[in-house]
Amino acid sequence: MKNTKKNILGLIKSFWVVLFVFTTNSFAKPTAVEPIVFKTDIAEDATPAVLNKILNLNKEQENQIKFEKGIYHFYSDKALEKFCYISNHDDVMVRTAFPIFDFKNITIDGQGSTFIFHGKMVPFLINSSKNVTVKNVSVDWEIPFHSETKIVAVDEKNKTFDMTISDKYPYEIRNGELIFIKEFYEHNLGQTILYDPIREAIMFDTESYTNLTTIRKNNVSRNLDKIKYKYEVDDRGKLFKDYGKENNLIVKELKPGLVRVFNHKKKLPPVGMILTAKGDQSVNRLAPAFRVTNTDGFNGTNVNIHHAGGMGIIAENSSDLILDNFNITPSHGRMVSATADATHFVGCRGKIVLRNSTFQNQLDDAMNVHGTYQKIVDVLGGNKIGVRMGHSQQQGFQIGKEEDLIGLVRLSDSFFPYHKLTIKEVQFINGRYQIITFNEELPKEIKTGDLIENLDAYPDLLVENCTISNNRARGLLISNPLKTIVRNNFFSTEMEAILIPVESGHWYESGNGANILIENNTFQDCTHSGQNRGVIRFVTDDDNENIAFKNISIINNTFNQFDNLILEVANTDGLIFSKNTISNSGTFKILHPENPAITVKTSKNITFKKNKYKGKAKQILVKDNLLPKLKFK
Amino acid sequence: MKNTKKNILGLIKSFWVVLFVFTTNSFAKPTAVEPIVFKTDIAEDATPAVLNKILNLNKEQENQIKFEKGIYHFYSDKALEKFCYISNHDDVMVRTAFPIFDFKNITIDGQGSTFIFHGKMVPFLINSSKNVTVKNVSVDWEIPFHSETKIVAVDEKNKTFDMTISDKYPYEIRNGELIFIKEFYEHNLGQTILYDPIREAIMFDTESYTNLTTIRKNNVSRNLDKIKYKYEVDDRGKLFKDYGKENNLIVKELKPGLVRVFNHKKKLPPVGMILTAKGDQSVNRLAPAFRVTNTDGFNGTNVNIHHAGGMGIIAENSSDLILDNFNITPSHGRMVSATADATHFVGCRGKIVLRNSTFQNQLDDAMNVHGTYQKIVDVLGGNKIGVRMGHSQQQGFQIGKEEDLIGLVRLSDSFFPYHKLTIKEVQFINGRYQIITFNEELPKEIKTGDLIENLDAYPDLLVENCTISNNRARGLLISNPLKTIVRNNFFSTEMEAILIPVESGHWYESGNGANILIENNTFQDCTHSGQNRGVIRFVTDDDNENIAFKNISIINNTFNQFDNLILEVANTDGLIFSKNTISNSGTFKILHPENPAITVKTSKNITFKKNKYKGKAKQILVKDNLLPKLKFK
Repeated sequence: MKNTKKNILGLIKSFWVVLFVFTTNSFAKPTAVEPIVFKTDIAEDATPAVLNKILNLNKEQENQIKFEKGIYHFYSDKALEKFCYISNHDDVMVRTAFPIFDFKNITIDGQGSTFIFHGKMVPFLINSSKNVTVKNVSVDWEIPFHSETKIVAVDEKNKTFDMTISDKYPYEIRNGELIFIKEFYEHNLGQTILYDPIREAIMFDTESYTNLTTIRKNNVSRNLDKIKYKYEVDDRGKLFKDYGKENNLIVKELKPGLVRVFNHKKKLPPVGMILTAKGDQSVNRLAPAFRVTNTDGFNGTNVNIHHAGGMGIIAENSSDLILDNFNITPSHGRMVSATADATHFVGCRGKIVLRNSTFQNQLDDAMNVHGTYQKIVDVLGGNKIGVRMGHSQQQGFQIGKEEDLIGLVRLSDSFFPYHKLTIKEVQFINGRYQIITFNEELPKEIKTGDLIENLDAYPDLLVENCTISNNRARGLLISNPLKTIVRNNFFSTEMEAILIPVESGHWYESGNGANILIENNTFQDCTHSGQNRGVIRFVTDDDNENIAFKNISIINNTFNQFDNLILEVANTDGLIFSKNTISNSGTFKILHPENPAITVKTSKNITFKKNKYKGKAKQILVKDNLLPKLKFK
Repeated sequence: MKNTKKNILGLIKSFWVVLFVFTTNSFAKPTAVEPIVFKTDIAEDATPAVLNKILNLNKEQENQIKFEKGIYHFYSDKALEKFCYISNHDDVMVRTAFPIFDFKNITIDGQGSTFIFHGKMVPFLINSSKNVTVKNVSVDWEIPFHSETKIVAVDEKNKTFDMTISDKYPYEIRNGELIFIKEFYEHNLGQTILYDPIREAIMFDTESYTNLTTIRKNNVSRNLDKIKYKYEVDDRGKLFKDYGKENNLIVKELKPGLVRVFNHKKKLPPVGMILTAKGDQSVNRLAPAFRVTNTDGFNGTNVNIHHAGGMGIIAENSSDLILDNFNITPSHGRMVSATADATHFVGCRGKIVLRNSTFQNQLDDAMNVHGTYQKIVDVLGGNKIGVRMGHSQQQGFQIGKEEDLIGLVRLSDSFFPYHKLTIKEVQFINGRYQIITFNEELPKEIKTGDLIENLDAYPDLLVENCTISNNRARGLLISNPLKTIVRNNFFSTEMEAILIPVESGHWYESGNGANILIENNTFQDCTHSGQNRGVIRFVTDDDNENIAFKNISIINNTFNQFDNLILEVANTDGLIFSKNTISNSGTFKILHPENPAITVKTSKNITFKKNKYKGKAKQILVKDNLLPKLKFK
């Protein structure tokens, strides 16, 4: 028997050697083939032809797909379907004509074409690939996933307002609730915000008016406590968030296309403003324009995304993502472009570059970069733990790959790990629960409730020559301890232009901030939402004095701001703020005249020098007792 | 190069030969290992231990899993998650502790245990396996997916009724709509039916009272026609079914646990009856107890299913399924067992046996056996077609496997195929659309709109010694042209005891009926719903005189029936009805005194002999002009 085995092993060895030679000759060098060129004869519904071609390509070789310049429609009816857990989106059954799975080297060149999508599609679904380029293409939807109405009358006495709804936005009223009907989708007034059509930007002080108060407490809720949950449940998750609540807004149609809204509790929206609505938070992020996972090397060049039912691009567990002239802007006179962030990177490493791009009118941040905290719920002994995904939109997210360095974090003690381990294996159990095996034994001090964070999955980040404006929410939301440069950009955002957080209680987005250079940017009337926040803000949601942020430089920027507060610093060790110019724009009225320009607390090694202050704050700097000698200069 | 290739091929050949010898010795004979025995120490939540074990078994060998007798809870929180297209159910993300995937030979023996499930779980999810046995186990849910209330008062003047809701059924009222809250699930009054607590069966003539009229037309629906769908859409599918409609029922809580219902349009439900509700049709089939796909050999022996949020067992594309003492019965004083069919077989072949089993109080048929019709929507030329799934609950269903014989059917011409082809490949594109490649060229006469049917995927069916009663809907719904024996059973069903249809317009369930023997059964007060239908019924939904059913024998049965109509025959060639005894039970009042006992139309070769009629019909047989000499004997 032993001899037989030996012979077999010898034979196998020879077999593999020869097979290696054979495959090396035949397959190993990817060679470029002739580009595939689609002509406009497929434009009426390009899905079947494009999908069929992509499914039948040789993925090992270089592939080029080109489109004769034109307008191509992509319907979902014959598109490939796949269930996707998408980070910071809903987990949805998506359809695509571009399943870029397991490609080694592929370029899709629209040559100036516009792709118009119909229904619940992800235009580019990219997974487990290398060197993917998409260029020279505009992406839009025939019927957007959001709706826009115009405020035409306000009745302060009866607390109602009227709005017109054009025939671009089909709607129904069901039991007093307004429902907008889309292709294979519908939404209610769940998430709303006002746009100012003159500025084509979020209305000044919209926070006083929106969201519309769609939800109220209900009166009858019986015996829900009789349901005994054995494990933690997510009160903010689907179903649970509805317990004890009911619809509050009632609408009445005055005539076709004209609707009166009752029961709104905030200020009544001003006549002439555009109310944009995208529906309930737990179902309205379903169709990002680009979804990139487990991919090394993505280039988006000369791309215009005019709409998406979610983000412009969501990238997860990928590396080296270069967006150049990659623009999110609205089309067809719409106020809104993408209905969530323009760009979003979770657990990405290598280089992330946003360059020469415009991010306008999307309904969330221009960029969000972070990892994930996952909560240890089972210490399974030896080298295994069970982890729970904290936020419902992180379901199914895999924290990293083999050999990645994982930090064990106890945020009450420190924002930095108390121990480090490397991944041996991640076992998916369900959207909320995974089992992680490490190469090393677990430390004795590990306990349930601690968090894990992937220390290898942060990027070398550059945001350069970009215009970020007219959107809801932040400009850049950065949780990146590695390296970040933000240079030569223009910001005019509704919330903070740049937010550097440590956030563990709601979104479970990991990553403290370090090695950040913010220079030569212009900040024009940011935080015009009405929220009382700085233009640049360092903040943790854990109420302690531990250091979270290190080595920050804010140099040579221009702040031309209608309100006082420019910079909020907390939990920081090492920040230099120099050569910046701060002035008051006068664009809007000052909402928070009591504010200083700068606040500093729970920090050390903070330096101000060579700044010019021409603003209106009565006091430029407010600080705590830790830095008695600190002065604004 | 040629020589090199030849050498390599030779080497590969030797390699496989030796490998074959090697594997034959080492692996080929599966050997039984020691049974795995779970003890009650895992009973608090058996999911993690059972799942971990099953995921780590050697699937190539025989496996036995036993449970020390006890009550085991299975929570969904740490169960394996998988998106499943489930035929005749919703397509859902399910969780399971028993992922029986790709096993060769596995037995799960509860040894008399009860497994209690929590939340949206499929207790046994079986796929691509051979020889699977599950025995000696009872399945139940801690909190059922349906709700039961008791009618306590009726106000005929104001057209309202009152019902009590026990604390077993947590509920909320949201904007006047009653919502029942479950573990990770909730439902409204969408589908309701009345139970008579004395008979523990569906209330006599419930059709006059239920469903509750939950839906009405809404008043405002604008510009929906502006959405241009390029392809066919399913008006009965999700979203579309809601267009133009709104909630009609309004409920008001009189005191905790006592609710008044307004706006019901049918007869008001009688005091003392139990109203059972399972929610909206498009979301309430989510957790069958057994789901078996692509599996050859399944034995369910001594199994009690007390509840399921869907069917007791749904089997698809499988063969040789033997259910023996496999019972669906309610527990804990509930009226309802499973919320859909007890057993359901789609595209199954080989033997299907239901023996010595009780199917009681489920909310749909005791058994449904059929294939699927899929609609040709694209003739792609050569040997390829694109097909569309007609019903939303058939999404993702694969019509067959390689070499299966597929019939092309044009029902307007014939219920039998006009051409036959064999499958080369089925390509999944999305839930609604697949591309099928045949080994042969397509015939010239093929056109879009024609249907396809798998002629190889029907079973040799035996239903013997079973009790079928107290359920909503039919006893046996059989679309099987191969062979069917129904023998020694007791039926007391709300609709037809045995329905043999050809149905292409709604459910797209394929299969005409042939070679059917129905003998020695007792039919006691069937069709007590109030519907005007026979106890045994042959019917097509295509209005023509083509033959659909052949070679039917109905022999030596006892019909003890409160109403007149026993047998409806249409589109049949060859039916013998002999030695049957028909009497009037007097159990309920006759609802349709004008009916005969038997109707025959569009048929030939029909024989009646040696039957005894002791019923109350004024005319025993009504027939059309095709059989002038036919007489009841």
